[in-house]
Amino acid sequence: MANPTQQLVAMLGELGRVTDEPGRLTRTFLSPAMQRANALVAGWMKDAGLTTRVDAVGNLIGRVGAQFCCALDHAGTKAGHSKSAPLPKTLLLGSHLDTVRDAGKFDGPLGVLLPIVALAELKRRGITLPFHVEVLGFSEEEGVRFASAYLGSEGYCGKLTAADLTMRDADGISVGETLKKFNDGKFFLPKPAHKRSNLLGYCEVHIEQGPVLEAKKLSVGVVSAIAGQSRFKLTWTGKAGHAGTTPMALRRDALAGASEFAVGIEAIARHTPGLVATIGALTVSPGAANVIPGEVVHTLDVRHARDSVRRAALMQIGRLATRIADERRLTRCWQRTQENGAVECSPKLTAALARSVQAVQGKSISLVSGAGHDAVVMSSLAPIAMLFVRSRDGLSHHPDEFTSAHDLDVALRVITDFLQRLAAENS
Amino acid sequence: MANPTQQLVAMLGELGRVTDEPGRLTRTFLSPAMQRANALVAGWMKDAGLTTRVDAVGNLIGRVGAQFCCALDHAGTKAGHSKSAPLPKTLLLGSHLDTVRDAGKFDGPLGVLLPIVALAELKRRGITLPFHVEVLGFSEEEGVRFASAYLGSEGYCGKLTAADLTMRDADGISVGETLKKFNDGKFFLPKPAHKRSNLLGYCEVHIEQGPVLEAKKLSVGVVSAIAGQSRFKLTWTGKAGHAGTTPMALRRDALAGASEFAVGIEAIARHTPGLVATIGALTVSPGAANVIPGEVVHTLDVRHARDSVRRAALMQIGRLATRIADERRLTRCWQRTQENGAVECSPKLTAALARSVQAVQGKSISLVSGAGHDAVVMSSLAPIAMLFVRSRDGLSHHPDEFTSAHDLDVALRVITDFLQRLAAENS
Repeated sequence: MANPTQQLVAMLGELGRVTDEPGRLTRTFLSPAMQRANALVAGWMKDAGLTTRVDAVGNLIGRVGAQFCCALDHAGTKAGHSKSAPLPKTLLLGSHLDTVRDAGKFDGPLGVLLPIVALAELKRRGITLPFHVEVLGFSEEEGVRFASAYLGSEGYCGKLTAADLTMRDADGISVGETLKKFNDGKFFLPKPAHKRSNLLGYCEVHIEQGPVLEAKKLSVGVVSAIAGQSRFKLTWTGKAGHAGTTPMALRRDALAGASEFAVGIEAIARHTPGLVATIGALTVSPGAANVIPGEVVHTLDVRHARDSVRRAALMQIGRLATRIADERRLTRCWQRTQENGAVECSPKLTAALARSVQAVQGKSISLVSGAGHDAVVMSSLAPIAMLFVRSRDGLSHHPDEFTSAHDLDVALRVITDFLQRLAAENS
Repeated sequence: MANPTQQLVAMLGELGRVTDEPGRLTRTFLSPAMQRANALVAGWMKDAGLTTRVDAVGNLIGRVGAQFCCALDHAGTKAGHSKSAPLPKTLLLGSHLDTVRDAGKFDGPLGVLLPIVALAELKRRGITLPFHVEVLGFSEEEGVRFASAYLGSEGYCGKLTAADLTMRDADGISVGETLKKFNDGKFFLPKPAHKRSNLLGYCEVHIEQGPVLEAKKLSVGVVSAIAGQSRFKLTWTGKAGHAGTTPMALRRDALAGASEFAVGIEAIARHTPGLVATIGALTVSPGAANVIPGEVVHTLDVRHARDSVRRAALMQIGRLATRIADERRLTRCWQRTQENGAVECSPKLTAALARSVQAVQGKSISLVSGAGHDAVVMSSLAPIAMLFVRSRDGLSHHPDEFTSAHDLDVALRVITDFLQRLAAENS
């Protein structure tokens, strides 16, 4: 019989073949492949002793009751439990089952399948837990089909709004229409799945999608916070002119200004520990070899684990842009396209997770997540913790996305240890 | 009756309405509009006393014989001229009648129409010239229809090659097929229209297409040289990565490298008098807001009136690129796409032209032409001189291209004076 890690590798492989697009892995919100994925994963959940259901927004939820509460229903209602003892709480574990287009098979599914394998292993060993556990496979995190991400976890947390329902996909079909059809004609905005006071927390296992663990030669690390993020569209306007006939002193070159800005924000980020600042997209107009650029439009993405540091850096970046524009007689226009505050992980849960990492790996490091995750939304409902697992080449959102069996094994042993550690603390 | 400047303005306006594309001005090599333009301008040439013909590559050539040579044919053969006196030489004046797409009406036509008006004015005043004059309306300079520019002047100078004939337009029609059809089925590569020893020189009037005259508040200036030019395509390759999860120290950001390069070449150009260096087109891959650029491809255009200065600057630019690539762990790839040596204007002709500018404008300045012109090709056949006329906002290749009647008047008086000055020197 395969060991738990081999089982996990096989499950990731099998789920990675459930796709909406032949030849590449793509699963989007409530698509046929997502429904097949839910059925496949639900089967594995049942094998591990969980009862399963799919909620109104398509999230797959597998649940196993606390050891001394044999007849708990999904709302966690007490049944057959001593009236004097406190009600057992629920620990949430999960991630998302949807993917980007042409995805890898780890981003999302790992955080759903690993807890199932961990719970199966505890069951095999006859270890029971003094709290309920829900394994969550969110229906939407990547924001592929609709403009907005996190539809799954927002639904679970009762954070979906009427406005969210009006967003439309490329075919003009709205979120609301999609959900109504999925629920046989009736859809109401869901309430939170739990009261915060009933929850122990939410723990998400996810590939790092970055190079830090690889650079430090470690399999896993504990996330201390999910970075806050500001995104902008910047437009620099100068004056197009003939590249041969306009002397340097008479130029108002938008690309030269944007280039000075790019070099400047890089220097600011390098001098601010933990800050990342990126220009990922940039276009030049008119864009001919012999014409001085009259306009440059580019993105700017700035992230840091502490909102105060990010805000101070943005002030510095703003002053840089003003100086460059003034000196070069350019105009610049800022348009803020996204703004998310940083989310701190729970010190208590994170400390427990770090102790498990220390026990399994011999060393625990803490990382900031630069990317958003379901944990961001889940922090509105529960204390959160996250375990990052090494990604080869820091790669994600790509078919070559890869995490080794060795690293999966470490992560699996960390989560198994973590569950037992929480059990000891909560028994 | 309209004065000569008013006539010139009216002629520019009328010719500016002869187009292949309704609603905007476009005339390309041997197109129907070019043939209508040739017919229109030939009429004006005849009114000014010139005999006209169109050569095998579609150039319009108007000719007026020297005063004491009444029956000269187009080859300049002596007829009725004293055998003891030297044969009169020929002065060439001209520019091109084709345009870019959606062009202005000055770039090219000014250098054809202004000499016609100047010669008409001399004729009106009863002033004759002791040399032959040819006014040349070249059929192709802008390189719109085929990949290569200067088909007209190259044909006139006998520089067209069999290889040139193989170039094809967007419809797959070759230069050779086009010329064969234009010549009723027979086309042979033309020989030079003149022996160099028979020519006084070639003088081209052209709008500046740059901001120098405007900045100096002058109508006209004398071109000292046409800059040499090197063009490259550069590719910077780093490593794409997640903008949120990749710390600054672990990045190999191709755009950050290209930006440092852009700032660096600008500094080199600013510190090298007369050098211009431009990145006009730049593309970023993958080009998403949240992805660190893995590859940047951009153009580089470097020009200077002295080839030695341009070459030294290119060495400096090469060292800059090497340093940036090494420091940032990027690779860079250079591809040279164009290389033209600088062309010196004739000191003698240019001095005469400067004296005329001094006489008419009160002050003469000398400029380097950063753009190529028919004069570049014509320098293979004759000493060259160029007069630049102020362009509003330095603009060209655009419907808003504009030169004021005042500046046209100054230019017209300069060329009229120049013709008389050459007459005095050559009589």
